[in-house]
Amino acid sequence: MASSSTAVQAEAFPDGTTDYIPLRKGKTDIRKPHISEQPMTLKNWYKHIDWLNTTLIIFVPLAGLISAYWIDLKWQTAVFSVIYYFFAGLGITAGYHRLWAHTSYKATLPLKIFLAAGGSAAVEGSARWWSTGHRAHHRYTDTEKDPYSVRKGLMYSHIGWMVFKQNPRRIGRTDISDLNQDPVVIWQHTHYLKTVIIMALMVPTLVCGLGWGDFLGGFVYAGILRIFFIQQATFCVNSLAHWLGDQPFDDRNSPRDHVITALVTLGEGYHNFHHEFPSDFRNAIEWWQYDPTKWAIWIWKQMGLAYDLKTFPQNEIEKGRLQQQQKKLDQKRTTLDWGIPLEQLPVISWDDYVAQTQEGQAWIAVAGVIHDVKEFIQNHPGGKALITSAIGKDATAIFNGGVYNHSNAAHNLLSTMRIGVLRGGCEVEIWKRAQAENKDVVTIRD
Amino acid sequence: MASSSTAVQAEAFPDGTTDYIPLRKGKTDIRKPHISEQPMTLKNWYKHIDWLNTTLIIFVPLAGLISAYWIDLKWQTAVFSVIYYFFAGLGITAGYHRLWAHTSYKATLPLKIFLAAGGSAAVEGSARWWSTGHRAHHRYTDTEKDPYSVRKGLMYSHIGWMVFKQNPRRIGRTDISDLNQDPVVIWQHTHYLKTVIIMALMVPTLVCGLGWGDFLGGFVYAGILRIFFIQQATFCVNSLAHWLGDQPFDDRNSPRDHVITALVTLGEGYHNFHHEFPSDFRNAIEWWQYDPTKWAIWIWKQMGLAYDLKTFPQNEIEKGRLQQQQKKLDQKRTTLDWGIPLEQLPVISWDDYVAQTQEGQAWIAVAGVIHDVKEFIQNHPGGKALITSAIGKDATAIFNGGVYNHSNAAHNLLSTMRIGVLRGGCEVEIWKRAQAENKDVVTIRD
Ligand code: HEM
Ligand code: HEM
Ligand SMILES: [Fe+2]
Ligand SMILES: [Fe+2]
Ligand SMILES: [Fe+2]
Ligand SMILES: [Fe+2]
Repeated sequence: MASSSTAVQAEAFPDGTTDYIPLRKGKTDIRKPHISEQPMTLKNWYKHIDWLNTTLIIFVPLAGLISAYWIDLKWQTAVFSVIYYFFAGLGITAGYHRLWAHTSYKATLPLKIFLAAGGSAAVEGSARWWSTGHRAHHRYTDTEKDPYSVRKGLMYSHIGWMVFKQNPRRIGRTDISDLNQDPVVIWQHTHYLKTVIIMALMVPTLVCGLGWGDFLGGFVYAGILRIFFIQQATFCVNSLAHWLGDQPFDDRNSPRDHVITALVTLGEGYHNFHHEFPSDFRNAIEWWQYDPTKWAIWIWKQMGLAYDLKTFPQNEIEKGRLQQQQKKLDQKRTTLDWGIPLEQLPVISWDDYVAQTQEGQAWIAVAGVIHDVKEFIQNHPGGKALITSAIGKDATAIFNGGVYNHSNAAHNLLSTMRIGVLRGGCEVEIWKRAQAENKDVVTIRD
Repeated sequence: MASSSTAVQAEAFPDGTTDYIPLRKGKTDIRKPHISEQPMTLKNWYKHIDWLNTTLIIFVPLAGLISAYWIDLKWQTAVFSVIYYFFAGLGITAGYHRLWAHTSYKATLPLKIFLAAGGSAAVEGSARWWSTGHRAHHRYTDTEKDPYSVRKGLMYSHIGWMVFKQNPRRIGRTDISDLNQDPVVIWQHTHYLKTVIIMALMVPTLVCGLGWGDFLGGFVYAGILRIFFIQQATFCVNSLAHWLGDQPFDDRNSPRDHVITALVTLGEGYHNFHHEFPSDFRNAIEWWQYDPTKWAIWIWKQMGLAYDLKTFPQNEIEKGRLQQQQKKLDQKRTTLDWGIPLEQLPVISWDDYVAQTQEGQAWIAVAGVIHDVKEFIQNHPGGKALITSAIGKDATAIFNGGVYNHSNAAHNLLSTMRIGVLRGGCEVEIWKRAQAENKDVVTIRD
């Protein structure tokens, strides 16, 4: 995943981008067709594989897993591995992601160095490379230009995009001028492989070796296997977080909120929120949700190491949530039967209405609308007698509280029984009467 | 709570009721002012107490609780008490409540006898008395005419309404002609005290005594204490179910849904649903919700003992739920800031707009509306450069996908920055352009 590059100014792209910087210098000529444009066959498959990435994220961890069988795990090494896991994890989540990719807060130099060191210990590329891809992921989410689009499959978004060579021209381009001005980012990018060897392997080996004589355990557990776990965990932000959970803010794209993803990724699991409000230093907005990255940033702020923590206004967050809920309600609404619209019903005169009921029709007029209650009489929760007594009458007042103040459900049900509109049956007028007759039933509203 | 009465036809009441039947013959003259109309004092408090009820629901259980201290609980008696608890409980929930008060299904004679026997074993009055009060509770929920209105306090709705004498004229009247035609209801009502002594005390005493020689345990545990528990549990339908939980269908009245109430009351805890759809034989509509009364009725149906199980159409249930959700969203909506309405904004010409930005204003026009983004530039998640480049231009197309297809949240935020409307800035026209220019960003919709 390591990559070296220089700031080569390319010609303007059709979308107006002028700041395109090739990610790998020289290795590929971007004017020739890229290998990923050819179908994979038995003869060329090995050309499709990115062997450096595959070694770092599959072969080495595998070797570590196997060798662990013969190597005892000392408790000190286990404890240190977990601590070092969180250090490397925060390097990615609080550093690469929230600080550099999204500039959701500002960090002092010591904190930047700490985060870049943690990021190197996680072996997921330089902060510059990672943030560039991540900005493209946000800007072109779910499209062809998304470097790890979940539309290409869960495994692709998790690990496939690194195992197979990608056409650099395909990935969407973004503005990284701010990263190019950050000395820590540039220094780490330039010396990336060195920082990996020191932070990811040497430091854990030496700490465990000099600390309690466990050089081998330190190398395998706190080094290789710890790298493996932190990689798989943070990869979940690109796969699981676009696949599992709810979409409380926007369901047009794939990002989703789920506590399992949050647990695995040091709090990056509220990903629907995050894609909607990417420059918020929080991923979880409720205090009871698991977001240790947010807690760490907050503590650094108290220590004077972080400042200018950005949050989106609560008003905007609530608006987004509300609109999504409204959208779901509107979708639901169209699936339900709301009765025949009044304008499609025949107009019937009062005399015709009464005449029809005298000839045996079970019709009841409520609020200017005539309803056929024949099928419903024996199901009426208030009994047959009462509902029958209203046939052929204007039951507006008795239905609305004169005898019983029917529930919302009863009004809904009534609307499904519509068969006609009363000529001159003025609803407002009749409602006013209902109010007046309704004096003795006083209902306190919650 | 036991009461004997005969069908005395009273004169018509102002609300049109003609079937009023006094619940206790002779004892009170309904033309004299009732004791409950006098304030309770140190001198007359004992006249306010209903001593028969108080004995049955407070003193006897208390005596049972105390004497249990000296009486061993045999395991057979314990098991039988639990079984008998469910038998008596179903008598109330499946019998008194869902069969007789709400006629939510029909029962064959053997099932009716079984349920009436269970109801007597619970010692909560006759089915006729209970159903009459319960119908009034539904028809006049939360009003003065509600026999156990929770508006008078949680304790009142739980037990106070039985401990203190109630003015029978206060309680709302309901149609019980169907109950008066049911021979099982009439027989149980006429012989109520006898059925209580046999079913609530003698049967458990004899079963435990003849079964495993535990006459005393049977009397105290399976009799008195079991009565106490079933009473307190079913009283919770009137108290807890109007006090604890959610209101997914209607929040104008007090009934609420809660799983704790359901657990305590054999499934009567989905009370918001129940008040909205009282003639549904179910209280819980989801299969995973706890409603053993529903399950029992369903099993009886399979056995040919119950038939004509009534359910409300799912369409009506969903409509009710949806409307309540809509109501909550609408309430929430009014608490949020949606930006200045367009009609209140000044109209600005294109030339003025451009001139102002040349004089240093950070204004951006999107979809015919001018926005002041000054405060936002340094917070823009897409970077300072891009947003600055749009100042003084028509950014409709680039904002809507030309450069980046902004999220719903971004649109919301934009609306809070409105300062003017562009003269002749026709939204539809500009949108069409945005669509055409947006060709290469293909977003698959979820
Ligand atoms: C015209 C069509 C009618 C429909 C669709 C209808 C529907 C319903 C429904 C769904 C309930 C259950 C409780 C609730 O949802 O509020 C109910 C209860 C009741 N209805 Fe109606 N009703 C109709 C007409 C009437 C009329 C004309 C009267 C009186 C003259 C009446 C009197 C009652 C009473 C007293 C109750 C309360 C029963 C109880 O909860 O114990 N209804 N009705
Ligand atoms: C006019 C006021 C603007 C507002 C209120 C605004 C707001 C936002 C917001 C809230 C985001 C976060 C992601 C999202 O919610 O979709 C965002 C991202 C972005 N904006 Fe804007 N924007 C504005 C103007 C512009 C303009 C004019 C451009 C381009 C010329 C632009 C380009 C971008 C890009 C490329 C991103 C993606 C950044 C990323 O996710 O990494 N914005 N904008
Ligand atoms: Fe994402
Ligand atoms: Fe992100
Ligand atoms: Fe109730
Ligand atoms: Fe009920």
